[in-house]
Amino acid sequence: MATIKDLAKEADLAVGTVSRVLNNRGYISKETRNKVYSAMKRIGYSPNAFAQGLSKKKMDCIAVIVPHIVHPYFAKMISRLEKEASKRGYKVIIFNSSGDAAKESDELLRYQSSFISGALLFSADISAEALMNFRIPLVLVEREPAGNAVSIQCDNVAGGRLAANHLIKKGCRNLIVISSLNTADMPGDDRENEFVRVCSESGATVKRYSAGSEQYISLDYHDLICRALNENPDCDGIFATSDLIAAQVIQECGRKGLRIPEDIKLVGFDDVELAGLTTPTITTVHQPIREIAEAAIETIEKLNEEKKVPRKIVLPVTLIERDSA
Amino acid sequence: MATIKDLAKEADLAVGTVSRVLNNRGYISKETRNKVYSAMKRIGYSPNAFAQGLSKKKMDCIAVIVPHIVHPYFAKMISRLEKEASKRGYKVIIFNSSGDAAKESDELLRYQSSFISGALLFSADISAEALMNFRIPLVLVEREPAGNAVSIQCDNVAGGRLAANHLIKKGCRNLIVISSLNTADMPGDDRENEFVRVCSESGATVKRYSAGSEQYISLDYHDLICRALNENPDCDGIFATSDLIAAQVIQECGRKGLRIPEDIKLVGFDDVELAGLTTPTITTVHQPIREIAEAAIETIEKLNEEKKVPRKIVLPVTLIERDSA
Repeated sequence: MATIKDLAKEADLAVGTVSRVLNNRGYISKETRNKVYSAMKRIGYSPNAFAQGLSKKKMDCIAVIVPHIVHPYFAKMISRLEKEASKRGYKVIIFNSSGDAAKESDELLRYQSSFISGALLFSADISAEALMNFRIPLVLVEREPAGNAVSIQCDNVAGGRLAANHLIKKGCRNLIVISSLNTADMPGDDRENEFVRVCSESGATVKRYSAGSEQYISLDYHDLICRALNENPDCDGIFATSDLIAAQVIQECGRKGLRIPEDIKLVGFDDVELAGLTTPTITTVHQPIREIAEAAIETIEKLNEEKKVPRKIVLPVTLIERDSA
Repeated sequence: MATIKDLAKEADLAVGTVSRVLNNRGYISKETRNKVYSAMKRIGYSPNAFAQGLSKKKMDCIAVIVPHIVHPYFAKMISRLEKEASKRGYKVIIFNSSGDAAKESDELLRYQSSFISGALLFSADISAEALMNFRIPLVLVEREPAGNAVSIQCDNVAGGRLAANHLIKKGCRNLIVISSLNTADMPGDDRENEFVRVCSESGATVKRYSAGSEQYISLDYHDLICRALNENPDCDGIFATSDLIAAQVIQECGRKGLRIPEDIKLVGFDDVELAGLTTPTITTVHQPIREIAEAAIETIEKLNEEKKVPRKIVLPVTLIERDSA
């Protein structure tokens, strides 16, 4: 098989020049390029030989299993995970499970006998018991550790508290919390629980509205929000446990002629791009997505090297003030 | 090495039952589970052996190179690609290039000597000439075919025409088009070009505002939009060549006290989730993202089977009327 040296000789050019042409780096004249291309044809050189040199390191992949790719939290998370993985020489493989535990389980089993270095699971659908089955480095995000699988979470309790204190400080006394899927005993449930606790402690009234799995999968919370507004005409403050829900609260308030922040103050959760793209922009609890991604990839790497890792990592959140409260 | 049969014998259960436990499928009593787990420990059985059976087919991967993962168009596209790939037994590997041609080029070279079945490139950064170098099935989305790389596009010309005709029908006479990155001679430029042609033909005035690569990478078009509004106080209609730009037009109009659709009518492009999450919701040109994803994965598969594929596929767009125009 012809090598890059053979190609350089045939093209009558330096190996470095040929490498630049193949790699498309720096300025190369059209004439030089053509010399290389015709030499390639003459000697039947395929750049594979060259590429092999580049990729001595085997391609290490980390699998990311999410219930949704388009949900703004997961889109941002995948973007960050790709960045952190790339820094450490890993590729990211994504799998959209639509919250189907059997699919997730099959997928994890498949990874075991493949080239996957580890997996990140953003789901509570597979039971903790079943997680014991999988013999690959496994990081759970926003659920409690199980078996050998370790956990990374944001400080959901602090997030609920920040939201409550902010709305109370702004004068809200009749509050609503609209949350997504509060059934699976997940760390994220603490956002709502702590919010309710702090509001009640301060003497404010607070009502809970929780979405079911149908809304979580369709990403459409309008009916639930509409009902919450109808049942609580005195409401002056809303905590939505994701910015996606908060954006839909803005829409439903708009339809009912309720002004944000004048009539109702609104705090979201996540701090994804969407929070800056609505009118008004959304005051929200910032999730440390970059730090979660960093910790997740680092943990997979350490597990592969058989190093000790913390069983649970909880990362801090902050409140970002924008226009909605 | 112990097999699933050995495990079933040790646990005194049927192979099917053990398989269901390992695969976490159907109802299994806690007692049965525990039997399997203790048998596993006793004989040192690792589910890998079982998993190997499941994954007789090798793991085929398709790489997707995008300039941004969080851009709503790419988030939706990745989601659809994962779905279509999954149907055909492929995994999706994602690579965020931030529009860096050298990175994209390195990445494509690396794929050649790996297990990647093909790549989808959503970028015009690598030159057509350089694309000739790569010896893997390659599909270009929203750029013209080059070398062996085939192209899939939406009907950008029809999209520009739909937007122009809709705004003119609604009575707009002083129009602006705000587009992202119109420098690289891309099919997407036709959205703007055809819009301008149709508006001019109908006797309406139309001004162009094009973003640079800085805005394209930061996803922040506010300054450009603010300038466009300041320079055109009579503007009564805006065509934004993405919904992301349209959402920011809504924000800038809000800041200036301009009402949409009363004062200014607005049409976007893409029909991503965001278009339904703003207030008002965005009237937009629907991109056939599902169909593009389907065609892209099908094309990679055909190229792998060395079947003939069209050099260029153009898929139709439609106008979706919402509240902004």
